[in-house]
Amino acid sequence: MRFHIAIDMDDKERTNELNRIALKFSEFYKGKVGIMPRVPITSLKDFSYWYTPGVAAVSLAVNRNVEDVFNLTGKWNSVAIVTDGTRVLGLGNVGPEASLPVMEGKSMIFNFLGGVNAVPIPIRVREKEEFVQVARALEPSFGAYNLEDIESPKCFFVLEELQKELSIPVWHDDQLGTACITLAGLLNSLKVVQKKREDAKVVLFGAGAANIATAHLLATAGFRMKNIVIADSKGILEPNRSDIDNLMFTNPWKYRLAMETNGERLSGEEGGAFKGADIVVSASRSDPSTLHKDWIRSMNDDAIVFALANPLPEIWPSDAIEAGAKIVATGRSDFPNQINNSLVFPGVFRGVLDARARKVDYDIMVTASEALAGRIADPTPEEVIPKMTDWDLYPEVAASVAYASSQKGFARKHESKEKFLQIATEIIEHNRKAYRTLLDNGSIPKLPEV
Amino acid sequence: MRFHIAIDMDDKERTNELNRIALKFSEFYKGKVGIMPRVPITSLKDFSYWYTPGVAAVSLAVNRNVEDVFNLTGKWNSVAIVTDGTRVLGLGNVGPEASLPVMEGKSMIFNFLGGVNAVPIPIRVREKEEFVQVARALEPSFGAYNLEDIESPKCFFVLEELQKELSIPVWHDDQLGTACITLAGLLNSLKVVQKKREDAKVVLFGAGAANIATAHLLATAGFRMKNIVIADSKGILEPNRSDIDNLMFTNPWKYRLAMETNGERLSGEEGGAFKGADIVVSASRSDPSTLHKDWIRSMNDDAIVFALANPLPEIWPSDAIEAGAKIVATGRSDFPNQINNSLVFPGVFRGVLDARARKVDYDIMVTASEALAGRIADPTPEEVIPKMTDWDLYPEVAASVAYASSQKGFARKHESKEKFLQIATEIIEHNRKAYRTLLDNGSIPKLPEV
Repeated sequence: MRFHIAIDMDDKERTNELNRIALKFSEFYKGKVGIMPRVPITSLKDFSYWYTPGVAAVSLAVNRNVEDVFNLTGKWNSVAIVTDGTRVLGLGNVGPEASLPVMEGKSMIFNFLGGVNAVPIPIRVREKEEFVQVARALEPSFGAYNLEDIESPKCFFVLEELQKELSIPVWHDDQLGTACITLAGLLNSLKVVQKKREDAKVVLFGAGAANIATAHLLATAGFRMKNIVIADSKGILEPNRSDIDNLMFTNPWKYRLAMETNGERLSGEEGGAFKGADIVVSASRSDPSTLHKDWIRSMNDDAIVFALANPLPEIWPSDAIEAGAKIVATGRSDFPNQINNSLVFPGVFRGVLDARARKVDYDIMVTASEALAGRIADPTPEEVIPKMTDWDLYPEVAASVAYASSQKGFARKHESKEKFLQIATEIIEHNRKAYRTLLDNGSIPKLPEV
Repeated sequence: MRFHIAIDMDDKERTNELNRIALKFSEFYKGKVGIMPRVPITSLKDFSYWYTPGVAAVSLAVNRNVEDVFNLTGKWNSVAIVTDGTRVLGLGNVGPEASLPVMEGKSMIFNFLGGVNAVPIPIRVREKEEFVQVARALEPSFGAYNLEDIESPKCFFVLEELQKELSIPVWHDDQLGTACITLAGLLNSLKVVQKKREDAKVVLFGAGAANIATAHLLATAGFRMKNIVIADSKGILEPNRSDIDNLMFTNPWKYRLAMETNGERLSGEEGGAFKGADIVVSASRSDPSTLHKDWIRSMNDDAIVFALANPLPEIWPSDAIEAGAKIVATGRSDFPNQINNSLVFPGVFRGVLDARARKVDYDIMVTASEALAGRIADPTPEEVIPKMTDWDLYPEVAASVAYASSQKGFARKHESKEKFLQIATEIIEHNRKAYRTLLDNGSIPKLPEV
């Protein structure tokens, strides 16, 4: 216990310090992204073709063939980051304004790692139908949507509806991004412990956005739905659980998984799900006492434990190892194996944008996960997830996703995988070079003293 | 007549050439604006304060005090350019995708001249109520809205509703921007001909977005509503016109002006409005045969003729002069006195943003017009409107608008006019310097051969 308290204290201090710095820097810079012209303006006469009257010809061209909007405007590289601010990080429903600092950070990462122009668009809406209506209306100028920080189960409805209605890829990062990097880590973990996807017994602990998507992604990747058991604070999810009739109406996504998973029809308290399991993926409470050591002990040999809550994992890695886990992953950068969506979305979006894809699905996500996993030639228990500093990762994921989109008939633009790799690499490098120029010449002021 | 045909031919050729260049360049650059981080990223560890976990503290700060969103994010400098693409330039309802090239051009000008981050957001909506609903939902991350290219009378409804509902300034450039630069030109024109606002008889020819707003702005500036006569293709607007009952329902804005203007109760064909008028402001058909020379001849001495249709004015300046006009302004850069919204919106938005204004109104617009007019110390018939290359104009307009917003109680931030001038100047110059850096180091590729 002492050890844990010590870690907790360090964490508190570290967190306080980070918070202080984040606030200070945010006040100094007042916004993490900005807009820049990307065409030459040598004199104001140039406005006659960038703007009126010449631009009329460009508008008419798009009006004649609406798909030309990808060739004549920035739609090909633009993403809307849309949120209603109802579930921001672990903070809950803080509202759209308070979500903006997070969405700006996301936009910054989109740009820095993926060369993508991603616009933070927190919206003020009440009902889920209104969310869909507003988000749908924004389609014309964007090549893809990244939904973010929307409470569950609203997020499932919104994602499904928008994916149905729009002809651009719609991604909800808290679902799909987390599932994608989780699968990548699991693929390498299974390689380490020499187990097979189709045999692996998986506990998904927590039935929110991330794990609902992870269940579907695992099934798409060759895991067996029947070998997956979902558990949450109300116990093991199964067709006879007391809340099941209610779920049918309030959360049909969870309800359907109650029917499809858990082939053995386990029931009862959540701890019972772990016995004989090979893998647990926990996306639950940010509290290191959430997953009990006893539960880990009851798992199969070479247990794989992904404890993804932030900032505190559901079990400390040292405890999980002590209880017999072979491989532990968390959301944190100060332990091995950080499960981090930033490894996924920059490359995935670069890829769907480069292919001008009409949609994205679980198959494409498996491709992305495999590309991510493949960045580590020889995975070890301490390294099943690649590092963010693996700069080749982002164009590699992009090329895999773009090529898969083309192969699957989702793409408007078709190239070889090699060509897609070249395109993604050039865009990302060109963008990073421009950014470095602004840093070097002082257009981006240096960090103030903290 | 020969002379006109010759001019028409030149114009056609010039237009064709501009169209060809605009298309070629748009295809080469594929988007006129992009997003850039504006904070330093020296290592990926910096993400821990720009993004999770540190950003949570920033979100919580905004959640505690929502006004802090102006201090801790980019809201203070962000504008949404919102259109439904129903009246794009003179092209009509070409749809939201086809409006994007124009909105990108606007965003580019916002940035280049005003240092503003303006996001092009063409939306796909049907009814005017849906326009309001979607636009309203976007408020959280923006410091102001610029509405654009919306058909009349929908544009009046949308502007009014959004101005009522939002606590940021909402501007419709086709109304307010055009009115603002028109008033600026008229103020200097009256100075040249030594006439007074309160005595001037004004014909507003065309009753669309621009002239409806111009009527209100003139009245706010000290012109007499009773001295204004509105005329359109159905004749002079007055309370007994045959379509007046219909107007009450289809266009109450025009209806109200039918009651308030035209104190002499002129009626009949549109040409009859000109007799004894001092000023005509035409925002009507792009056709040089729209305004007859006879009509201009029937005006008072030293007539002021603003023929604002684009690309072709409603009367050629040479014809207007021949018919007795003392001062002629058009929308074109190849004649003297170009009425150009780009003189207005960069400074006005810089100003309302710097004051973190809650709204903008006709009083503020008069201030902007006076600042614009004041850029010319000694106006002449050939120079009643300042030039776009008058670089001091934009911060000057910004400071006037910001200070007026503060004085009128619209502002969240209060400074002296000198301080506002300094703030605006610094932002615009800093931004332009960053842009030049990107040009100089080749991050923005040179124009291709045409």
